[in-house]
Amino acid sequence: MNPEEEKRATPCSSPVFVHNPHLDVMKDDVLYHFALGTATHNLPAMFGDVKFVCVGGSPWRMKSFTEYIAAEIRMEDPESEYPNICAGTDRYAMYKVGPVLSVSHGMGIPSIAIMLHELIKLLHHAHCEDVTIVRIGTSGGIGLEPGTVVVTKKSMDATFLPKFEQVILGKTVERNTDLDQCLAEELLQCSKELNQFETVIGNTMCTLDFYEGQARLDGAFCSYTEKDKQDYLKKASEAGICNIEMESSVFAAMCKLSGLRAAVVCVTLLDRLKGDQMNGSHEVLQSYQLRPQILVGNYIKKLLKAKAGRSCNSATV
Amino acid sequence: MNPEEEKRATPCSSPVFVHNPHLDVMKDDVLYHFALGTATHNLPAMFGDVKFVCVGGSPWRMKSFTEYIAAEIRMEDPESEYPNICAGTDRYAMYKVGPVLSVSHGMGIPSIAIMLHELIKLLHHAHCEDVTIVRIGTSGGIGLEPGTVVVTKKSMDATFLPKFEQVILGKTVERNTDLDQCLAEELLQCSKELNQFETVIGNTMCTLDFYEGQARLDGAFCSYTEKDKQDYLKKASEAGICNIEMESSVFAAMCKLSGLRAAVVCVTLLDRLKGDQMNGSHEVLQSYQLRPQILVGNYIKKLLKAKAGRSCNSATV
Repeated sequence: MNPEEEKRATPCSSPVFVHNPHLDVMKDDVLYHFALGTATHNLPAMFGDVKFVCVGGSPWRMKSFTEYIAAEIRMEDPESEYPNICAGTDRYAMYKVGPVLSVSHGMGIPSIAIMLHELIKLLHHAHCEDVTIVRIGTSGGIGLEPGTVVVTKKSMDATFLPKFEQVILGKTVERNTDLDQCLAEELLQCSKELNQFETVIGNTMCTLDFYEGQARLDGAFCSYTEKDKQDYLKKASEAGICNIEMESSVFAAMCKLSGLRAAVVCVTLLDRLKGDQMNGSHEVLQSYQLRPQILVGNYIKKLLKAKAGRSCNSATV
Repeated sequence: MNPEEEKRATPCSSPVFVHNPHLDVMKDDVLYHFALGTATHNLPAMFGDVKFVCVGGSPWRMKSFTEYIAAEIRMEDPESEYPNICAGTDRYAMYKVGPVLSVSHGMGIPSIAIMLHELIKLLHHAHCEDVTIVRIGTSGGIGLEPGTVVVTKKSMDATFLPKFEQVILGKTVERNTDLDQCLAEELLQCSKELNQFETVIGNTMCTLDFYEGQARLDGAFCSYTEKDKQDYLKKASEAGICNIEMESSVFAAMCKLSGLRAAVVCVTLLDRLKGDQMNGSHEVLQSYQLRPQILVGNYIKKLLKAKAGRSCNSATV
């Protein structure tokens, strides 16, 4: 083998990084909000083969994703009910089928951040390598037909800047919210091949609040007019923002810090330029919510099929 | 009756306020994250008698609180399983027994804020009056014996200031986080009468993050030393902060805006000066978590007993 061939033949493995020297001297590590721990569970045996992690707000959706992906990658076990790995707590739900882990994260930045701290430590303790993580979620769209799927280019804050502000010891630290552009393009390409629904790549605004923070007129409190709302959303649109949700910025920041290849795939449940209330029929909203999981499920299936021929520059599975 | 007697005899009823002129012109209101709505549910019939609302992060805890309070106020129905009123969604869980509503809120400011917007609208639509609301939660203590219950005096941010910053249309607005001091004192008095565990009144720090945001050394990322951590917690202690959690500031701010008589009652699961990991035994941590519900359950029982004789300056039930 010449050096170039050898390089291609040798998987370029990328571990999941923690950045915390204190972890090295801890006797064991309790992942409290998962009801798991290094002293009580054999994490490498339980999770060492994980290559894909899908996360979403709703525990029900993450269970349904597991059932869906099991059928897609033909690893379903008719005897299995896919038990919740975090059954000892009601903070998060976690399911696993083959190399795919599915974890719920609740709503909002703090809730997903707790989950990600413990997930990153879990993947680290389990010696996982080359992990791809995708948030599959719901969002409000700006000027898009409801049901459109948005793959996030940049996650932006409420002032339309691509950054996440982390408070550490009372001081604010800015973190980069870059996501993997190559992964985003691959997901877009996968959606084109599927040809079941519209998918776009665009910026996503991440807010700390669903009502006043997203310029909704239907919260318990509202001190602005319909025109103020429209002006704000227009400015967001001019900054390339296609949709609004509540977790992408810290997700992007933490995945980047830990070397996880990350994407955010959210369906838009409504067009915020036309309204604020989620008053579509239950069936229609439910069918929209399936779209990110269909897209990501197909992407995972495609990657697992192409396992042998994949080069280290995109994803090594 | 002289005017003073008349004033005492006439219940001084206080409605639950929304501050949103747009609600008046909406045909109906979908409380999306509760799977409830004005067009689909008779909210006054379902909730018109609510006088107490208890909220907490965990859905399991809120169900157990409902079973506990049902027995305490002797309204338990041996036939009833206390169905989850929000069974159509997995975002929040809600239970009701007599005048007591119990609602979960997930973890973090954004998650509780969504719940509170919809709860305040629910109480408004149901024409509820004179409602007392208590958050019963868990927290990390500073210099307190684990298991101590803290009734919050002031909710403070990560810079030890008693304010909540709400972003509206991309601009930051400061909101007051005052809680009802009279209610806090009544709860402290109730705990003294119970004499089952230590309860103190003190300030509570509310953070956006559980790990770096609370100076923990055991997250996936940590860029500071044990000494930095201790210095930060000491400064917090000097500002009168007894415990740290993740919801009290927006809870205080929104309850104040809507005229709800509000308190925060959290048990401390560990002393943060001595460690970061929640590695107490499951049984001990579980027994600590019961304390806020025992205290608040007894307070509600006491108030319901004293119903007739209570003056409007404290709580009219």
